[in-house]
Amino acid sequence: MKNLKLPQLAGAALVATAALALPAFGQDAEPVVEAVSGEVPEQTVFILNSFLFLVCGFLVMWMAAGFSMLEAGLVRRKNVSMQLLKNIGLFSVAGIAYYLIGYNLMYPLGNWSIGTDDTGGYLGAFGIAILEAVGIGAGEADDLSYATTGSDFFFQLMFCATTASIVSGALAERIKLWPFMIFILILTAIIYPVQASWKWGGGFLDSQFGFLDFAGSTVVHSVGGWAALAGAILLGSRMGKYENGAVNPMPGSSMPLATLGTFILWLGWFGFNGGSQLALGSVGDVADVSRIFANTNTAAAGGAVAAMLLTQLIYKKVDLTMVLNGALAGLVSITAEPLTPGLGMATLIGAVGGVIVVFAVPLLDRLKIDDVVGAIPVHLFAGVWGTLAVLLTNPDATFIGQLMPIIIVGIFVFVVSFVIWFILKVTMGIRVSEEEEAMGLDKAEVGVEAYPEF
Amino acid sequence: MKNLKLPQLAGAALVATAALALPAFGQDAEPVVEAVSGEVPEQTVFILNSFLFLVCGFLVMWMAAGFSMLEAGLVRRKNVSMQLLKNIGLFSVAGIAYYLIGYNLMYPLGNWSIGTDDTGGYLGAFGIAILEAVGIGAGEADDLSYATTGSDFFFQLMFCATTASIVSGALAERIKLWPFMIFILILTAIIYPVQASWKWGGGFLDSQFGFLDFAGSTVVHSVGGWAALAGAILLGSRMGKYENGAVNPMPGSSMPLATLGTFILWLGWFGFNGGSQLALGSVGDVADVSRIFANTNTAAAGGAVAAMLLTQLIYKKVDLTMVLNGALAGLVSITAEPLTPGLGMATLIGAVGGVIVVFAVPLLDRLKIDDVVGAIPVHLFAGVWGTLAVLLTNPDATFIGQLMPIIIVGIFVFVVSFVIWFILKVTMGIRVSEEEEAMGLDKAEVGVEAYPEF
Amino acid sequence: MKNLKLPQLAGAALVATAALALPAFGQDAEPVVEAVSGEVPEQTVFILNSFLFLVCGFLVMWMAAGFSMLEAGLVRRKNVSMQLLKNIGLFSVAGIAYYLIGYNLMYPLGNWSIGTDDTGGYLGAFGIAILEAVGIGAGEADDLSYATTGSDFFFQLMFCATTASIVSGALAERIKLWPFMIFILILTAIIYPVQASWKWGGGFLDSQFGFLDFAGSTVVHSVGGWAALAGAILLGSRMGKYENGAVNPMPGSSMPLATLGTFILWLGWFGFNGGSQLALGSVGDVADVSRIFANTNTAAAGGAVAAMLLTQLIYKKVDLTMVLNGALAGLVSITAEPLTPGLGMATLIGAVGGVIVVFAVPLLDRLKIDDVVGAIPVHLFAGVWGTLAVLLTNPDATFIGQLMPIIIVGIFVFVVSFVIWFILKVTMGIRVSEEEEAMGLDKAEVGVEAYPEF
Repeated sequence: MKNLKLPQLAGAALVATAALALPAFGQDAEPVVEAVSGEVPEQTVFILNSFLFLVCGFLVMWMAAGFSMLEAGLVRRKNVSMQLLKNIGLFSVAGIAYYLIGYNLMYPLGNWSIGTDDTGGYLGAFGIAILEAVGIGAGEADDLSYATTGSDFFFQLMFCATTASIVSGALAERIKLWPFMIFILILTAIIYPVQASWKWGGGFLDSQFGFLDFAGSTVVHSVGGWAALAGAILLGSRMGKYENGAVNPMPGSSMPLATLGTFILWLGWFGFNGGSQLALGSVGDVADVSRIFANTNTAAAGGAVAAMLLTQLIYKKVDLTMVLNGALAGLVSITAEPLTPGLGMATLIGAVGGVIVVFAVPLLDRLKIDDVVGAIPVHLFAGVWGTLAVLLTNPDATFIGQLMPIIIVGIFVFVVSFVIWFILKVTMGIRVSEEEEAMGLDKAEVGVEAYPEF
Repeated sequence: MKNLKLPQLAGAALVATAALALPAFGQDAEPVVEAVSGEVPEQTVFILNSFLFLVCGFLVMWMAAGFSMLEAGLVRRKNVSMQLLKNIGLFSVAGIAYYLIGYNLMYPLGNWSIGTDDTGGYLGAFGIAILEAVGIGAGEADDLSYATTGSDFFFQLMFCATTASIVSGALAERIKLWPFMIFILILTAIIYPVQASWKWGGGFLDSQFGFLDFAGSTVVHSVGGWAALAGAILLGSRMGKYENGAVNPMPGSSMPLATLGTFILWLGWFGFNGGSQLALGSVGDVADVSRIFANTNTAAAGGAVAAMLLTQLIYKKVDLTMVLNGALAGLVSITAEPLTPGLGMATLIGAVGGVIVVFAVPLLDRLKIDDVVGAIPVHLFAGVWGTLAVLLTNPDATFIGQLMPIIIVGIFVFVVSFVIWFILKVTMGIRVSEEEEAMGLDKAEVGVEAYPEF
Repeated sequence: MKNLKLPQLAGAALVATAALALPAFGQDAEPVVEAVSGEVPEQTVFILNSFLFLVCGFLVMWMAAGFSMLEAGLVRRKNVSMQLLKNIGLFSVAGIAYYLIGYNLMYPLGNWSIGTDDTGGYLGAFGIAILEAVGIGAGEADDLSYATTGSDFFFQLMFCATTASIVSGALAERIKLWPFMIFILILTAIIYPVQASWKWGGGFLDSQFGFLDFAGSTVVHSVGGWAALAGAILLGSRMGKYENGAVNPMPGSSMPLATLGTFILWLGWFGFNGGSQLALGSVGDVADVSRIFANTNTAAAGGAVAAMLLTQLIYKKVDLTMVLNGALAGLVSITAEPLTPGLGMATLIGAVGGVIVVFAVPLLDRLKIDDVVGAIPVHLFAGVWGTLAVLLTNPDATFIGQLMPIIIVGIFVFVVSFVIWFILKVTMGIRVSEEEEAMGLDKAEVGVEAYPEF
């Protein structure tokens, strides 16, 4: 895009050089030509943009492993295999659902089923994803000013899968496998893509509200959180979690796995936020991607340090799981706007995320909403905060333009999810029997214990 | 390569611009110049190709960690340290052996010890790998139309090491450390490079059979499988595995590690298949690499979902280890041709891989071939399937051209491996004593227990 | 930098082409233009350099996870949560401290507080890190001949954090959380940046001694080692480690985690050494980065194989933890000069590192210096070896120019660290009580057990 005018400039420059040079052969002509030789050629831009998507896409794919490890570490050992199975299963289902339905529903490229780019798009296009053919020539790219369709599909798929990963942790230790997988299918084929089209497909949240959500504090993280919240309410808490007004702690089975998962997510987030710049092929774009990497890191650091200090102050001990979730909340918080803050502001935005988690986790427990891994505080609460925090540093953001989309997306995802969970509940049932829950899902539904010799 | 004609075009364009512009100074000259400014300069292509190798190479290196975790999770706890040791050991030995002998044996660049490029190469060149000198100028690259020798060596080494990794899992829990390491030395120095030269070094499978194996369903995965099969037959099954006609399950010690390993392999496979495009520096190449990333992901998803559904139908429970191996089999299946299929076909090719695993694992047990981690179904069986599946989408593939190399490579690797394992067996012995096997290899040979406090 | 003269050449070439072409329109003009079209445009170089920093930077960030897993695997289970907490905590603190103070202290860009570029810089500049603004134009980059400030900051931060990670392992299982975090704050804000400025900021070790330390065998690894050694001496050994002249082994709780950590570090090291080329945008630079990747891998392999063979010879068993530390020592050894050695020499340099570890670990025990994970042998001893090994392959290195900086940095870091540890010891105390140590730090200070159900 930034190069559109270059050929004309270059053409004029060459012509001018040639014309002026002839009568004065040997004169110093480099300032004019310098601009030509220094600029990034259009096809190089295209390659760099696409490669950014591939590299950042594999980083976001890696987040699926991060969620798996985080959740496997935070559930009790009798449910670990099930949690692993759900995570690799949901990632696989997301891959197929997004290909069959989600991608075009999210990116209709103007071909809205309901609405238009101008008046506001509401429902995208139906059809499977089609990539560019094998071995295309330079003129055959779908959009030479952007990136390959294949790299875009790959990158965007990983965001869809991330949304699904968020749900699995909150509902752990009591939800049945297959109803969960059916919900994931609907979430990744329809719910996520539809609301994502409203912003990233150029739909009404983008065109009518001027909503700003760079990498998806709302579009990804709060969506996962709302879907999880609807499920958690309908599912109820784990047996014995809330008894006689007390909250019984059910500590996770492996802190190394939970910590590994957090580090994986931290790493993957560079791809998540950095790739959302959608371009690498100019000096400005690479400088922006660099800012984003640095801001993403420091926001996570801010969230972790805030949770360390706060749990020390409140509990006189530093709760490792809070620190892990603090880092993740810092990451979610910076996701709506990882570009415009300076490093100091990014650290503070992340730190507020860490504070939110420390207070929100016991709050949910008081409401008897049993979120096994803290997914709702981290992804929903910090996601809302991050979306509002755009107002702090990006002058293009408006309060209404941020608030209304948070509410609209929230209502849409929560209501639709609630209805689907409810239908699943009254038809096939979503919760295992009390015996199965007591025995553990690994024996009941997986048939493979996580640690049979321990 | 695609840029070879560019300088001439550019030269002509500039000349024409200059000539035509003079009488009509100020005319719109941009269409001619646009082609010049948009093209990727030759040295940029070289850098991008090389960087693709480095990035994809580190992803494939990461697969060594994936195999380690997968295998550590699937063996019993008394053999975990040994399995880890074998994996880091084989990766190290492969690195040195491929440098000393393997690389030039695999890529003779026409200097065949037996055969020629035209009549068919059979045995490559002998000599250590030599990289480009430090700080070369643009004209000093070994092949400016390709990539740096260092990046090529780095990338190709990782494929060699992957082949070795496949072997270790199948033979776990009863093979002695040092005979295993000696076999790995021969495998990575000679067996793998020789047969790989037949295809990727331009040898007779490539030139005479027109064999197509994009990233190595046969050249890498089946080779690891054949070498493992020969070893497993000579080694015999673990004590107590097959008794009185029954198959005694010996569940793996840690499902989180096995799942982590699978996710690592899934991630690494983007490098494995994507890097095998061998080029990134044109619009067509980056679009192809993008297709490959997307196809690789969806094939894994297909394999995992197929295994989920099938084990639910057959066993009424979803076997996590089958789902993990299903995903891996999907990846192996798409490896021979990750480029030409569309996303739907890639999903199906992967799904068939998942089906193969579900049926092949019990089949091997019926044959009393004790493959601890399922490496032979995943890498050999799905590797053969993937090599034949090239016929479904690539019109350049012929049935004979695919089948014969599968057989030729299979016979070569199986027979040579069998002979070497046999020599090792009758000389130094390949199996630990019954006492050592019962005690566990960690105490017997490593002296470090994996989990001493559990 | 390599392109500085290109615009003039190109300008002259174009002028010449135009002038000469007119009378002979249609003549073959490509040789002149080829140089223009083949060269990498200046802005592409800038983007590639920056992207190298981002990719290598996320690899080095990943090393933080590697240290966490390595150390979690090598401590006893009662201290695992604490070790994880320290690692994620130190990485977070490093991120903030380096932003607030460290970056400008390390890279004063000539604005030394004490000294000058010419006479030798001793103390850098004070002030927070400021990145380039959002959406800059090509002319607004801080240094168009280098890379974005954001990518440089991101990359360099990770080196600072790595230095801190080295300290945590040596002092494990008995140090209090908060004094440790305070030391890390000082280390990452001041100690590391000050001495790093002496070499990488262009200070007196660089300008007056001609010190060569490509990626930091001394500047990073020995610094972490010296800081750890000072702490270990003041802290004393763990209860029961050295009794009645005997060394009581205290085996680590999880070999899979330790091995995973080693593989993560191995992977991250490609970024550590490869990114230290600081450039990717020319044929020479990408060939150098490729050499570095290959050399880094083979040095690790050499270290691992040396430790395997040596422990087999000495102990008749292969000690897995020695092999892991051998690989890491190989990596540390090649870090001072990963570019100039050939593959064979790189393997040998790494192998010597592996040998050093096998002998140095028991040596430290004899000195009753209790280094829980072997950080001092790996990072300090092999770091010194690697710094001297530059003399083997780089003709620009001098013995004095290598030796003196090792000593100067060593004295500076050891003395300053010792003083800070001492102040912490006499003020707030650095060691937990005997009861807490016996109980384990997880219960005492974290309140979260690592494996509560095992």
